[in-house]
Amino acid sequence: MIVEKDDRLILVTNDDGLYAAGLKALLEVMEEFGKVVLVSTTESMSGMSQAMTTKTPLRLKLLEENERHRIYTCNGTPTDIVKIAVNQLLERMPDWVVSGINHGANASVSVLYSGTMAAALEGCLYGISSVGFSLNNFSRSADFSACKKIVRSVMNKLSEEPLPQGICLNVNIPDIAEDQIKGIMICRQARGNWEEEFAKRKDPMGKTYYWLTGSFRNREPEATDTDEWALANGYVSIVPVSVDMTAYSYIDGLKDKFGR
Amino acid sequence: MIVEKDDRLILVTNDDGLYAAGLKALLEVMEEFGKVVLVSTTESMSGMSQAMTTKTPLRLKLLEENERHRIYTCNGTPTDIVKIAVNQLLERMPDWVVSGINHGANASVSVLYSGTMAAALEGCLYGISSVGFSLNNFSRSADFSACKKIVRSVMNKLSEEPLPQGICLNVNIPDIAEDQIKGIMICRQARGNWEEEFAKRKDPMGKTYYWLTGSFRNREPEATDTDEWALANGYVSIVPVSVDMTAYSYIDGLKDKFGR
Repeated sequence: MIVEKDDRLILVTNDDGLYAAGLKALLEVMEEFGKVVLVSTTESMSGMSQAMTTKTPLRLKLLEENERHRIYTCNGTPTDIVKIAVNQLLERMPDWVVSGINHGANASVSVLYSGTMAAALEGCLYGISSVGFSLNNFSRSADFSACKKIVRSVMNKLSEEPLPQGICLNVNIPDIAEDQIKGIMICRQARGNWEEEFAKRKDPMGKTYYWLTGSFRNREPEATDTDEWALANGYVSIVPVSVDMTAYSYIDGLKDKFGR
Repeated sequence: MIVEKDDRLILVTNDDGLYAAGLKALLEVMEEFGKVVLVSTTESMSGMSQAMTTKTPLRLKLLEENERHRIYTCNGTPTDIVKIAVNQLLERMPDWVVSGINHGANASVSVLYSGTMAAALEGCLYGISSVGFSLNNFSRSADFSACKKIVRSVMNKLSEEPLPQGICLNVNIPDIAEDQIKGIMICRQARGNWEEEFAKRKDPMGKTYYWLTGSFRNREPEATDTDEWALANGYVSIVPVSVDMTAYSYIDGLKDKFGR
């Protein structure tokens, strides 16, 4: 693959591994927009958040190269992948980092745990326009055909001008037929949390172990401007996500408390 | 340990493992405030961010119990630890989740990668007043004596009233003598990023591998209201951190772009 000066250079990644249907769908759409370097996790890295690999070495494997793309796998997390792609693999800083299409939604506080969104946040930290896409269906055999049109439409808008510094996009797509999708809605992150349950079991030695499980609880189901509401009501949600986590609303309250 | 109705119940954790001097210092101060359940990571989990363990089972080990505390280890991440402590170990919802004292600062965008701050954010998602403490010194033999006074002072303020919903505190302490610390400063998260370098090596089989490394770059060294500035100038920094990552400043811009 030769990257010309005028080519758009796009880093595609995700956390579901190389054989995920969502990643394949994303690659197909991104090739319409430019030259693609795809770096996949070797295995599933769902729920790895912004984790970095510092205790074991990273490996890269070039699997395929043609005129439109190069495809690699990496044994690290999505965050590692963006770092190593930018530093070791890419001809130059990419124009876009596009992550997904994830099998499963990353709305509300899932943004904090998501490997898909970690890749977008990492791209954003490098000053690159970055987007994470997720489909509200965890199944391996989820149907991504409606998603491709949504991805195309969002990235067409992004072609017009880069995102502001420090902001990336979290796009969640409802799992319904294309003609049922009502449109795109710009949202805020819903307040909510995962309520954990643990399966408590005994191993063959009689020792206790636990499996983490849990279900999401929307803490403001009545609010109509959230990503959770959009998804539940047939809209694609787009939340602009900031790498600045400062709670500005509480700065003055804290200053009063601490006298400075 | 018996937890009476009037006792303050405190969950203490961190990502540096059980033998970290910072964790010991934190335990000592927290025992002044209430009954403590300490759950340590089995090994170092630095840089694990909000990662969750879903592919392997979790184990808990009770190591010590007396009138003031119970001490466990858990093979999971700091996020796992808060979840499993709240769901399986604690008599009731704790009043505080206190994480640290980390060996190494977690200022600026390090909040996104930090296991220490992930524990505080996780506590916050459960509606618990939560604080992460870090000392600006990575060394195992760092001196935490000045920190203890700072921790005491911050938690005394927190005793007066709980933190607002969805907000936790990121406290970073400069690595200087107690009498050199100029005070506490309420700050915002500095804009910055880690610039990665990768050590590229050959293994004995002749295959390439990479070690992730890197150094932090403050993108606004002139700003005097950031955590990076405070730390560099002899102040303890406190940043209120929000679990809501929505970039509200860009909602209207996106609505214009997408026509909704």
